[in-house]
Amino acid sequence: MNDESKFFEDFEIGDSYMTAGRTITETDIVMHAMHSGDFMPHHTDEEFASSQPIKHRIAHGNLTFVISTGLIFQSQGMNPNVMNYGYGKIRYPGLVYIGDTIKTEVTVADKKDAKQPTHGVLTQTETTTNQSGETVCFVEHLLYVRKKNA
Amino acid sequence: MNDESKFFEDFEIGDSYMTAGRTITETDIVMHAMHSGDFMPHHTDEEFASSQPIKHRIAHGNLTFVISTGLIFQSQGMNPNVMNYGYGKIRYPGLVYIGDTIKTEVTVADKKDAKQPTHGVLTQTETTTNQSGETVCFVEHLLYVRKKNA
Amino acid sequence: MNDESKFFEDFEIGDSYMTAGRTITETDIVMHAMHSGDFMPHHTDEEFASSQPIKHRIAHGNLTFVISTGLIFQSQGMNPNVMNYGYGKIRYPGLVYIGDTIKTEVTVADKKDAKQPTHGVLTQTETTTNQSGETVCFVEHLLYVRKKNA
Amino acid sequence: MNDESKFFEDFEIGDSYMTAGRTITETDIVMHAMHSGDFMPHHTDEEFASSQPIKHRIAHGNLTFVISTGLIFQSQGMNPNVMNYGYGKIRYPGLVYIGDTIKTEVTVADKKDAKQPTHGVLTQTETTTNQSGETVCFVEHLLYVRKKNA
Amino acid sequence: MNDESKFFEDFEIGDSYMTAGRTITETDIVMHAMHSGDFMPHHTDEEFASSQPIKHRIAHGNLTFVISTGLIFQSQGMNPNVMNYGYGKIRYPGLVYIGDTIKTEVTVADKKDAKQPTHGVLTQTETTTNQSGETVCFVEHLLYVRKKNA
Amino acid sequence: MNDESKFFEDFEIGDSYMTAGRTITETDIVMHAMHSGDFMPHHTDEEFASSQPIKHRIAHGNLTFVISTGLIFQSQGMNPNVMNYGYGKIRYPGLVYIGDTIKTEVTVADKKDAKQPTHGVLTQTETTTNQSGETVCFVEHLLYVRKKNA
Repeated sequence: MNDESKFFEDFEIGDSYMTAGRTITETDIVMHAMHSGDFMPHHTDEEFASSQPIKHRIAHGNLTFVISTGLIFQSQGMNPNVMNYGYGKIRYPGLVYIGDTIKTEVTVADKKDAKQPTHGVLTQTETTTNQSGETVCFVEHLLYVRKKNA
Repeated sequence: MNDESKFFEDFEIGDSYMTAGRTITETDIVMHAMHSGDFMPHHTDEEFASSQPIKHRIAHGNLTFVISTGLIFQSQGMNPNVMNYGYGKIRYPGLVYIGDTIKTEVTVADKKDAKQPTHGVLTQTETTTNQSGETVCFVEHLLYVRKKNA
Repeated sequence: MNDESKFFEDFEIGDSYMTAGRTITETDIVMHAMHSGDFMPHHTDEEFASSQPIKHRIAHGNLTFVISTGLIFQSQGMNPNVMNYGYGKIRYPGLVYIGDTIKTEVTVADKKDAKQPTHGVLTQTETTTNQSGETVCFVEHLLYVRKKNA
Repeated sequence: MNDESKFFEDFEIGDSYMTAGRTITETDIVMHAMHSGDFMPHHTDEEFASSQPIKHRIAHGNLTFVISTGLIFQSQGMNPNVMNYGYGKIRYPGLVYIGDTIKTEVTVADKKDAKQPTHGVLTQTETTTNQSGETVCFVEHLLYVRKKNA
Repeated sequence: MNDESKFFEDFEIGDSYMTAGRTITETDIVMHAMHSGDFMPHHTDEEFASSQPIKHRIAHGNLTFVISTGLIFQSQGMNPNVMNYGYGKIRYPGLVYIGDTIKTEVTVADKKDAKQPTHGVLTQTETTTNQSGETVCFVEHLLYVRKKNA
Repeated sequence: MNDESKFFEDFEIGDSYMTAGRTITETDIVMHAMHSGDFMPHHTDEEFASSQPIKHRIAHGNLTFVISTGLIFQSQGMNPNVMNYGYGKIRYPGLVYIGDTIKTEVTVADKKDAKQPTHGVLTQTETTTNQSGETVCFVEHLLYVRKKNA
């Protein structure tokens, strides 16, 4: 699925596709800690982690979230009619460990008019699961999408 | 302000502090594109950007968001009583350009009981502004916080 | 254009498409020097470069080449019928400076049978140009592609 | 061997040396995927790779190639008389897995006059092998080299 | 412990605290080799390392040192009264292997007047140990600290 | 100069050579902050820096130091007879700004016997200067070097 030419009218509630997968490596966790500056010991201190219920270092929730945005970009490319409006809700119901492989299912969940008559607001759910099918990140993504002939 | 020893009861609605600042560099944008895999041309193609109303490459909204999480970590450190529950809402009301400097104001906005009597749910707003004081990222962060003697 | 389901028979000589663009930043040059370990002063020493005909630091030829492979991936995605066989020829007829924006035109240039009857060998030219339309990298890419019903 | 002061006449067909080795890590694969933007699942999705004949994630061919250029730089340093002219041929006859250690043998394979009488064209083969001695990358590198008193 | 408001008079010989820990990963070693450009085979060539008394790749001494500076920053934050004056001595009495977790104990070891009457020179020892309590890096850090009312 | 085969007896006090140069980029500062975790605002917050006597963001002293170690590696390669013993003294007499180009002069300053009769201790000064010839980093490096026939 490639959204490059879609307008607001072209998205239908229930439309859905799955991205490719990506394995979350120790490198990804170190890179996310470094780039964000968030060195919480759950992510970067194995001695600490092993003393906690999590047992081992886990990925930052936002690392999973951010990588899902790249997986989505790689699946759907750039659509000039779409603008990122923000997020309605993000949840991390499961942990991601080093070596887990994630992929994201994108579903059109809701459509409504925007204030401007030329656009609509699309709610897209982005559900990221690991290799066992467990949901590790759930996102409600709000997109501002141009209407045809607008 | 350092939250290391705080329990749910210790947070009061209206408590607020400001993080240190960080300049968003071209390096940060390239790193975020690379790590996420999201190479939307608004962020990595100056020719494209200069043909758009944004005029120049801008930071990914989520780059600003992720860097704010690091600024907060550096201000408040690790509190073993707090667990990240997710986000209620994220908005990007302003653009971040290469060279802008951002900082984040953290405010306790709401407290309510959790299902488990041992914990409470804290809503913390995280408002990131640029060097001109314009809000570029607004986040409602949900934290699950242990109660005293729990 | 998305090649995901194409077989050898589906490629026609002359088929062509253009990738998205990417601005080559100082960050990219530093990253390529670091990752490869190739710190030739043409790329990492502005004092040296300014004493040479090139005047300023330039991108490693292979940096341009490697980034073109990513631009192609982002345009055409993964085709399970295609295997990278190698390159017939790589040339760097122009220099890439910090801030230049490149994009790559991919063209099916030749098709011939492979030793195995189940596959064919595709020669794809990948011509990378800068924002002024000058060719900075020319590649003959050899692909080993499965035939239908093979 | 250090080429820093060599002219075209100083290279003899058959001259050969071996670089130091470098272990290809998971970090290198993630970095190459990130920097190039090429997230083919053979390199970044262990679930996919394990379902294929390759069994595990493998290095991008071009990652091996690029790292061999750094190994060569570290052995021979910068020779102001030499310019990179391009490549005549690149092949990837073997796979590189996480943890393999590679090194590159550089051999002067051919010399011929250039159009300009002041320079010659050197063909240098760069054969990269893994710790078992298997060739994983073979490169014909074309160098444009100044002649003495030119 | 957070030094943000301390003056020279506020530091007492013997004052001491321990930073958080950080696990040294293969990623860190690759990153340090890349960024510094120091690809000594003890750090980046497992074949070489396994033939030596060290048996496996080890972290660069300076990698351990540099990461200890970040752990200290995260513990004590920025104190506008303090300037880095240099180091009196650095030793690496133990090896750091991939997967080791380090932390740093910071102790005020000495105080003396500076040439300028407005400042003093503080000697701070920074002793980094691994998860077994062995010292892997010992640093005498010289800090130039403003006096009260200066 | 290439030290690969030198023993303790082969080094003479006063021996000296200059490395290649390297331009310190904004990327290097961001990378050093990220990898170390040291986000002192002098290095990563242009708004803060511009309010200080330094006027602009400066490189971490240890970034300059670490990059000098890579420049030295690239000049002298790996000598199996030499072991890093530590540092006697590090000073940062000048500031390094984004865009400055540094290089390092290495001089054998002192030789003395080690406790073990098979080795000697070499003191090597490593003086890093910027493009204006100002010293920005001065290091006394202690090397433990094998004697001939030991």
